[in-house]
Amino acid sequence: MLGLKSATTTQWVQQVRGNLEEVLIDHAHCEKKAARTAMNLLCAYDTHVELCREMTLIIAEELEHFEQVCALLNRRSITFRRQQPADYGKELNKLVRSDEPERAVDRLLVAGLIEARSCERFAVLRDHLEDQELSAFYGSLFESEARHHTTYLKLARGFASPESVAQRLDELASDEQSILSRASRLPRMHS
Amino acid sequence: MLGLKSATTTQWVQQVRGNLEEVLIDHAHCEKKAARTAMNLLCAYDTHVELCREMTLIIAEELEHFEQVCALLNRRSITFRRQQPADYGKELNKLVRSDEPERAVDRLLVAGLIEARSCERFAVLRDHLEDQELSAFYGSLFESEARHHTTYLKLARGFASPESVAQRLDELASDEQSILSRASRLPRMHS
Repeated sequence: MLGLKSATTTQWVQQVRGNLEEVLIDHAHCEKKAARTAMNLLCAYDTHVELCREMTLIIAEELEHFEQVCALLNRRSITFRRQQPADYGKELNKLVRSDEPERAVDRLLVAGLIEARSCERFAVLRDHLEDQELSAFYGSLFESEARHHTTYLKLARGFASPESVAQRLDELASDEQSILSRASRLPRMHS
Repeated sequence: MLGLKSATTTQWVQQVRGNLEEVLIDHAHCEKKAARTAMNLLCAYDTHVELCREMTLIIAEELEHFEQVCALLNRRSITFRRQQPADYGKELNKLVRSDEPERAVDRLLVAGLIEARSCERFAVLRDHLEDQELSAFYGSLFESEARHHTTYLKLARGFASPESVAQRLDELASDEQSILSRASRLPRMHS
């Protein structure tokens, strides 16, 4: 799915079911971090008109999702608070090459892979949560994450040939699978 | 005006007139930095619901302005490029106290003062540029900068008493005047 090399396990679903509050809080943090990542990319590549336009749209959508998750927490009397994050994002970002334009390609592909994994997990939550409100909510978010994934891949092709982007994506997707398999066992969206 | 302790000099207006291209490029960078500042504040104070909502609105507006200035540059065949920034923002941010909640108050007041100065300068540009398109453009941006200034002050009062916020704003406004008076002589929006 979306170029990912592994599917989410039933153990993860069980863990989410048993720790829903903690995963919802983590989800709010993830939406905020996704907005920040898009802002960082806009600032780093501010002379790229199309990239800036797409990042502006993604920032607005991620912040809207952040507000939606915070409102959902509020309705359930769950206090939004700091949490130890999963090391997934940090580990993925370590793979980013340091020289341009490879750096741009990698930053965009890593952002795209995180969106792909979120998308895959949202589909799992949509299909496996008994809570109707949450199931519908994850169903509604699914489509935009898939679209963001596509946007990041398209933008990466603005910095390198389609062939080298495809090859690098394949490498990073293997790394993503490996990082996820040894991720922290905390109940998180990307654990 | 908006609590500022000095008015823009005619020398600045003369310098802008003689270096319009460079100032327009700096203006694009300023809008982008204003969006980034709002994102940083949202991430730093992510459990404050009202602050997050206001920052989301400001981010969207600043990024819209960024796109507008970039489009204006494009219409005039001016290449948007990196520039040595004015040291104004950096100097102002050095005044931010390190302990919370004073840090939050200062970050919000510094952001508010920068908006106030932009607002004051946009009014000057609206009134003194012969170029009708630019004059109208700065007139159109004036109102939102004034609104952002008001928002930042209101949010600062969420972290300290109205009296201590007013006193600190007075101190920082004096510092702003002093920083601006010794700012770099590069032609910039805040020089």
